[in-house]
Amino acid sequence: MNQKNNVIGVVGLGYVGLPLALAFGRTKIVTYGFDINKKRISDLKKNLDRTGESSRQEIKNSQVKYTNNPQDIKKCSFIVVAVPTPVTYDNEPDFKPLAQASELVGTHLKKGSIIVYESTVYPGATEEICIPILEKYSGLTYLKDFKIGYSPERINPGDKKNTLQTIIKIVSGSDKPSTQKIAKMYRLICKAGVHIAPNIKVAEATKVIENTQRDINIAFMNELSLIFHKMDIDTKAVLDAANTKWNALGFEPGLVGGHCIGVDPYYLIKKAKSLGFDPNVMLSARTINDGMASFVAGLAKEGLKKINKRTKGSNILILGLTFKENVKDIRNSKIAQTISSLKSQGANVVGYDPMIEMEDISREFGIKSLKRLEGSFDAVIIATPHKIFQKMAPALVRILTNPGVIVDVKNRFSKLKNNPNIVYQSL
Amino acid sequence: MNQKNNVIGVVGLGYVGLPLALAFGRTKIVTYGFDINKKRISDLKKNLDRTGESSRQEIKNSQVKYTNNPQDIKKCSFIVVAVPTPVTYDNEPDFKPLAQASELVGTHLKKGSIIVYESTVYPGATEEICIPILEKYSGLTYLKDFKIGYSPERINPGDKKNTLQTIIKIVSGSDKPSTQKIAKMYRLICKAGVHIAPNIKVAEATKVIENTQRDINIAFMNELSLIFHKMDIDTKAVLDAANTKWNALGFEPGLVGGHCIGVDPYYLIKKAKSLGFDPNVMLSARTINDGMASFVAGLAKEGLKKINKRTKGSNILILGLTFKENVKDIRNSKIAQTISSLKSQGANVVGYDPMIEMEDISREFGIKSLKRLEGSFDAVIIATPHKIFQKMAPALVRILTNPGVIVDVKNRFSKLKNNPNIVYQSL
Repeated sequence: MNQKNNVIGVVGLGYVGLPLALAFGRTKIVTYGFDINKKRISDLKKNLDRTGESSRQEIKNSQVKYTNNPQDIKKCSFIVVAVPTPVTYDNEPDFKPLAQASELVGTHLKKGSIIVYESTVYPGATEEICIPILEKYSGLTYLKDFKIGYSPERINPGDKKNTLQTIIKIVSGSDKPSTQKIAKMYRLICKAGVHIAPNIKVAEATKVIENTQRDINIAFMNELSLIFHKMDIDTKAVLDAANTKWNALGFEPGLVGGHCIGVDPYYLIKKAKSLGFDPNVMLSARTINDGMASFVAGLAKEGLKKINKRTKGSNILILGLTFKENVKDIRNSKIAQTISSLKSQGANVVGYDPMIEMEDISREFGIKSLKRLEGSFDAVIIATPHKIFQKMAPALVRILTNPGVIVDVKNRFSKLKNNPNIVYQSL
Repeated sequence: MNQKNNVIGVVGLGYVGLPLALAFGRTKIVTYGFDINKKRISDLKKNLDRTGESSRQEIKNSQVKYTNNPQDIKKCSFIVVAVPTPVTYDNEPDFKPLAQASELVGTHLKKGSIIVYESTVYPGATEEICIPILEKYSGLTYLKDFKIGYSPERINPGDKKNTLQTIIKIVSGSDKPSTQKIAKMYRLICKAGVHIAPNIKVAEATKVIENTQRDINIAFMNELSLIFHKMDIDTKAVLDAANTKWNALGFEPGLVGGHCIGVDPYYLIKKAKSLGFDPNVMLSARTINDGMASFVAGLAKEGLKKINKRTKGSNILILGLTFKENVKDIRNSKIAQTISSLKSQGANVVGYDPMIEMEDISREFGIKSLKRLEGSFDAVIIATPHKIFQKMAPALVRILTNPGVIVDVKNRFSKLKNNPNIVYQSL
């Protein structure tokens, strides 16, 4: 492979695309980083990643040419598309970003290029959806003029150990030569190596099942939590005991939000249903996980009742609003449903999360945000227990009415259970 | 704890009870091993364990007094009950063996004793079901005259690495003193130590969720296998790729039989339903796993069709009939359903499994058994791939018609895929 002829383009510079572009930008190969978001590009030119995943130094250390100009795609021969594959309001796969990116790439595609997709889809989607768009907008012919590949992203936001460099990357391509080329390119940036899948469908399937498996295991934990709540059994004590087994899996109950685990299963579900198969294991998992936010609201309500307070008019603080711990990402954060449930019952809800901007909290969740952890609250819902909250137990007790309610979604403050003035609830 | 006053009794000497009795029998404490099965007792007196789990030497090295005489229970102060908790034909918990054992122990119970249950049940069952029976038949009063405990068995048949000695044992008791005593007794035999659960319900919950979690994860693999079969995607290739991830769980599709994973979930399901809660994650897992045996029959049928043969009149060999690999246990082996499905469609089905007696195959599965791997078969279903089969691929090709069908349930002979004379099917 003559690397001199390679010019890399990464289309979409989000949680997946930016680390990829940075990694390629550290090789000797010319790398363009393209995003349609102008603010994102101007930020990155200033070495600033607002997701908090890549440091200023990491950005500085890489030679990525950040651009908004679609014309720059013309210069690229190896293009990686890393755009989101969300779901619509009614949980249908939303291929719009993928289609738009393919249109953009197709419009500026030159002969001999390889386009690799990293977006999570159901098996078959990349070939069915992207190839026709690429052909249409480029006027080129698939296989003869260009080839494609699929390499599922395995980025775990907030995880500094399992990164692009340290994980094995699955790769696949249109045919043997393109697969070999794709494998070579990824080997340049993935120190752990690549795993070559026999075809694109297998690589697509691999990704979607990984996240669906997590979804199902968390759903089981949630199902247990609901049953044990009815039986007055401490779920955490059960899981602590279960986790002493040699093959324990270590899952916990919780809200399943974000842009992966709560979303990807719908892609596979959609495909299965189109084949006339009802994937009831996946479906029941989705149903239970999507219902947990209102169960959390119920725990707050139940707690307030125990201290003879009504939800209506009560002051409730939500601690941590991102979709998971130690990240800045509020996309599809399920606590939003808890908040709207409590607000609809007349509670005064405010939020506190120093990981995110106060105005983002107001805009995204429709609630006011505390500047500091202060005030007086009948209940505190610890929704997302960031590490920065770890030592805040005394502060929590201070801002709580006496008696007061703690809803500790992830069971991280279970010592508060022993405080006689606190009604402690958790999953 | 004055060990001189202790006499241990283990009631039920099956897969769980025998290793327990042997472990206690290696301590200095007098240990009775009781079973209602006279053949089992006379076997054990001759140092013979027909389950194949404990060797002649292991039995010889332990000082267990094997007995059929219920009067011997009177001599015991620390009694462990290890009897099966199966399900009825319609998948309802069957507490009969547990109730009978409790009646037997109750009838011969002396004051001051502790009875520890190891049988898998739903949370609350030990206290709700066993205590009243113990009180009734002993005339003694719970807590005043005797106490109980619960310590879930974690025996993994066929596993020589994770044994009673090497796993952490969960213990729980009626109150603090009994819990401490139970912990002390188990510490004598469990080198890995004990984990004290806060109460009996938590310990019961721990066990039942461990197996249910496996059931659900296998169900997800089976669900994937059914979907991918419709899409002509190689499930094994997908799982091989997925297993390169740092947090891969390593589950496989397959038949879920035996006396644990396919049974225990029904206990928890029963309890959840009695609380007015439909545990759909668990239920959907059970449904899909229970349907896999007929899917395997369907794979054979589909394969025969591809080589233009009808199921009716075809000769089909089932290789491996125990409920899992490398064990002698045929209880609740799901391949029975595959066999009856194929027989009802007019196939001539025979079995081959050197792990078990030929007459057991005839009796349990209603089919003839081969003495040696010979004959001529249109299809071979490799149901349970014991290690002893590993090198039999050439023999399989020899006994197969040309062309012929291989249904490789667990994907252990995937090299046969490349043989042009074989239609290879698998989960």
